[in-house]
Amino acid sequence: MYKAPVGEIAFTLSEICGLKDLQSTTRFAEVSDDLVEAILTEAGRFAAEEIAPLNKVADTHGTPFKDGAVTTPPGWKELYKAWAEGGWNGLSAGEEGGGQALPVMLNTAALEMWNSGSMAFAIGPTLTMGAVEAIERHASDELKATYLEKLVSGEWMATMNLTEPQAGSDLNALRSRAERQDDGTYRIFGQKIFITYGEHDMTDNIVHLVLARLPDAPAGTRGISLFLVPKFFVNEDGSLGARNDVRCAGVEHKMGIHGSPTCTMVYGDEGGAIGWLIGEENRGLACMFTMMNNARLAVGVQGLGVAERAFQQALSYAIDRKQGRAPGDKGPDMSPIARHPDIKRTLLAMKARTQVARILCYACAHAIDMAHAAESDADKAFWNERAGVLTPLAKAISTDFGSEVSSLGVQIHGGMGYVEETGAAQHMRDARIACIYEGTNGIQSIDLVLRKLPLSGGEHVTGYLGELGAIADEVAASNLEGLAGVGARLKQAVADLSETTAWMMAAQAEGRVADALCGATPYLRQFGLTVGGVLLARGALRSTGDHAHGAAERALLARNFAETILTETIGIKADILASSSAIQAFDPEALAS
Amino acid sequence: MYKAPVGEIAFTLSEICGLKDLQSTTRFAEVSDDLVEAILTEAGRFAAEEIAPLNKVADTHGTPFKDGAVTTPPGWKELYKAWAEGGWNGLSAGEEGGGQALPVMLNTAALEMWNSGSMAFAIGPTLTMGAVEAIERHASDELKATYLEKLVSGEWMATMNLTEPQAGSDLNALRSRAERQDDGTYRIFGQKIFITYGEHDMTDNIVHLVLARLPDAPAGTRGISLFLVPKFFVNEDGSLGARNDVRCAGVEHKMGIHGSPTCTMVYGDEGGAIGWLIGEENRGLACMFTMMNNARLAVGVQGLGVAERAFQQALSYAIDRKQGRAPGDKGPDMSPIARHPDIKRTLLAMKARTQVARILCYACAHAIDMAHAAESDADKAFWNERAGVLTPLAKAISTDFGSEVSSLGVQIHGGMGYVEETGAAQHMRDARIACIYEGTNGIQSIDLVLRKLPLSGGEHVTGYLGELGAIADEVAASNLEGLAGVGARLKQAVADLSETTAWMMAAQAEGRVADALCGATPYLRQFGLTVGGVLLARGALRSTGDHAHGAAERALLARNFAETILTETIGIKADILASSSAIQAFDPEALAS
Repeated sequence: MYKAPVGEIAFTLSEICGLKDLQSTTRFAEVSDDLVEAILTEAGRFAAEEIAPLNKVADTHGTPFKDGAVTTPPGWKELYKAWAEGGWNGLSAGEEGGGQALPVMLNTAALEMWNSGSMAFAIGPTLTMGAVEAIERHASDELKATYLEKLVSGEWMATMNLTEPQAGSDLNALRSRAERQDDGTYRIFGQKIFITYGEHDMTDNIVHLVLARLPDAPAGTRGISLFLVPKFFVNEDGSLGARNDVRCAGVEHKMGIHGSPTCTMVYGDEGGAIGWLIGEENRGLACMFTMMNNARLAVGVQGLGVAERAFQQALSYAIDRKQGRAPGDKGPDMSPIARHPDIKRTLLAMKARTQVARILCYACAHAIDMAHAAESDADKAFWNERAGVLTPLAKAISTDFGSEVSSLGVQIHGGMGYVEETGAAQHMRDARIACIYEGTNGIQSIDLVLRKLPLSGGEHVTGYLGELGAIADEVAASNLEGLAGVGARLKQAVADLSETTAWMMAAQAEGRVADALCGATPYLRQFGLTVGGVLLARGALRSTGDHAHGAAERALLARNFAETILTETIGIKADILASSSAIQAFDPEALAS
Repeated sequence: MYKAPVGEIAFTLSEICGLKDLQSTTRFAEVSDDLVEAILTEAGRFAAEEIAPLNKVADTHGTPFKDGAVTTPPGWKELYKAWAEGGWNGLSAGEEGGGQALPVMLNTAALEMWNSGSMAFAIGPTLTMGAVEAIERHASDELKATYLEKLVSGEWMATMNLTEPQAGSDLNALRSRAERQDDGTYRIFGQKIFITYGEHDMTDNIVHLVLARLPDAPAGTRGISLFLVPKFFVNEDGSLGARNDVRCAGVEHKMGIHGSPTCTMVYGDEGGAIGWLIGEENRGLACMFTMMNNARLAVGVQGLGVAERAFQQALSYAIDRKQGRAPGDKGPDMSPIARHPDIKRTLLAMKARTQVARILCYACAHAIDMAHAAESDADKAFWNERAGVLTPLAKAISTDFGSEVSSLGVQIHGGMGYVEETGAAQHMRDARIACIYEGTNGIQSIDLVLRKLPLSGGEHVTGYLGELGAIADEVAASNLEGLAGVGARLKQAVADLSETTAWMMAAQAEGRVADALCGATPYLRQFGLTVGGVLLARGALRSTGDHAHGAAERALLARNFAETILTETIGIKADILASSSAIQAFDPEALAS
């Protein structure tokens, strides 16, 4: 079973990822250490005691679909009600809708634990949180008055409707259409697929945010508008009225997250679903990006949450399971497999990856909070850029690690990992989607290379590399015995990253975009591993005073990561600098013919 | 759908993996190129037309269990019958039982195609083939007379019963027991788990090979005997008699290979299952190893087969699916995603890994055949050692690649990869078990380091490295334009492998076994990637004459592998040489408390 790692989470927030800086801003001055601890403790309790036990039930039951209705797993509805009543849905929502306006960092930490409890459960509220932010920022006062409070409290849930069969990664191809009506509303027509929690029985109403095109809209993504389409209309007194013309046409049979209904939604089959515009016409994508950036971080946190749970389960199994005799063990008995060197390596690989995923997600949340708290335009711009750089790293690295860690968890279980009984396989099946949705990890790396590297003419990333280099220097200069050799490895990794970064920037400056794109995926990996390695070591340096008891363990983890995972970046650099020519020469279409 | 890559298989057999050497031996002199081509073509046809269409059906249907009986998927029984009647079961079985005594290389190539068709189907006959070899080598004439012919023809199938709940990787802990009877037979008691095709409705009889202990047996693996336990007794006239005291108590609900029943088998609940000794008392493990080494190669071939199928499917999807605009593409239309650089990289990563898996499996089969064909003790010993070194590489690398390639296949499909409809997810779920059974890949690396490196006092592996170095030199010296830079990379990789090999040997010589074990998994990977990279390039060098049409493509693949995958070995070397101290200092048990 899952035990919330509250101490490690609190340490990571405060000592590694900058919660303390945040607490010294005017906006978040009231976020005391006591408050943080109280929130983390209670979230951890809820995740471990209430959510985690239902994870397997949900996997087995799924979300059966019949006659347009979706039945969620047994206990799911009650769980959601208890969770919403705990106030968790509005943790970092604004006060306008009744939210607590706490840092995204805290919500991210809580989200980690919800996802460790059950990714299929946590993903539902995540979408509501994104919708809340889009409505807070872009919707009219009238829409806010009608919807915001109920979405912040969690009384209603929300969805995000982008994908259509021909429009996945490329929203240019979007075809759903919207027609203006005289009363200022719109009629919406079209089919959306892969809509998470598009239909369910957990709340009385469901609020769909839907991308569609107006008849006179420009082609491409500059002609997309965002609409709010409720499942049930809302009367003036707030009660629910007639049903809108939107229905669920089916749910997908997926590899994992069986507790989360993935719906095909049909709008306007009976004359048009009534929708209300959010923001301006043809500016829907900008509004949607508000949700999407948050959602990308939130998906990274899914990878993190599943990784933590898979690690805990594998550790427990490795200590209980006895096979063979580990080197140095005496006597007639078999050793716990946790004592075998190869299993130790595997457990460390799982733990280090999990902690690096945590660091990347919390660091990204920190940047978002710092942008919110910034009191000058320059500060706001700086932190927005930092969040922009960290978002693809948090999303792609954490979800790749979620897959890698849960797969290693299966491996540690041996044959027992492959039978569904133990739950190890479920973690792996669940985690796999996180590398795909909210922009595949390939899209994340393209985003990093084409959109994030050029921020401030390249100076933002260069500055960040300088910050990383300074921490690496600090590690190298420290006398911490457990970190012997780590500083040098980190310095080399930062230097290597600087080299590939310069190469990427030069390729773009010289119009060799395809060269840059050929190396985008390994470049993102190199970047993420380097940031992770540096910040892991920073954690070891900061393990003093109150946190000293974990110092040796943190140093060991940082060292192991530097020796066994950060070492990947040596080959990655060689790959990026060499491989683009052969990749471009490859013609898959000729191969298939 | 699957298209058998007969041309690539034939090229790999002949030009890369040494089938020609084999054809020049006395034993296999009659294996003409025409015969090879006829066999591969017909096997490819059967795999593509008969087996492949049932793969998804079997995944959906599974193998329901009721009242001790297992129902196989619709069409499974007829498929097996047609397959056995094609003579495929006895391809490399000895002539004594009616087999064709063809090289294991050919059977391995056919097995690749059966596995591409359906891994859940192919695994059943694989176990029968292993049992045939154990019986051929170790069983009494009486047992041979009763069982061999029916097993070679495939009229009956066989199973392999090792695992018990407390005895998985460690067979020392085996508890099933056998009691001698006056008539020379034995009574067998015990429970076995994870028995593949332990019960089913495909053949009239099932022949179980079962490991158990005699009452006076020494402790540990030196006290294990092997027994043949038929489901139905066989009358003197060959007809089936009464049912033996063995029954299936349940089937596992697994992550994948749903068409393959994984059974819990109970022996002796009603007074003892009657068994016949194979080989000598207490020497069962040696007999079982006959099966196990073959089974390890066969499991590697599962990884290969699934990788090939997943690659073909992803390639086809990437050419059909249009999203976004690839660099250089003009006009209003979206590009096939196969033209995007990141997808090209991914497709190459899949294709190169698949071909390396093929090379490792065929090279291992070649060594087994050369040992069979050897006319001197020295030659036989040499090729047995070579097979010993290549078996863990073929098993672990090919199955890791099976998992990696099928996961990349899911990624290329985007959201469609995660829904079960497309079948991409099934390949990933199916492939995952191959990294676990027949000795986890961790066990394979321990086998490589502790048992294979010391062969002939280390000289066998050193000699092999010399052979690899010579090929790398040949690549470096070649003028093939497409291989520019590849020779230097290969030479460096071989030099790095020589360095870690020396380190591993020194660690063992100095009694630092734990040091060696800490690096065993990355060492096996480094070894496999290096062999794969060198032999891929050899393929490009040999692309002349009849095969010249594929020369550019083979050079491109070898170059891409050297630039993007072989580069991993640079970091791996750094890992192995540095990481053992921190890994050994890690105490998982302290972490959990």
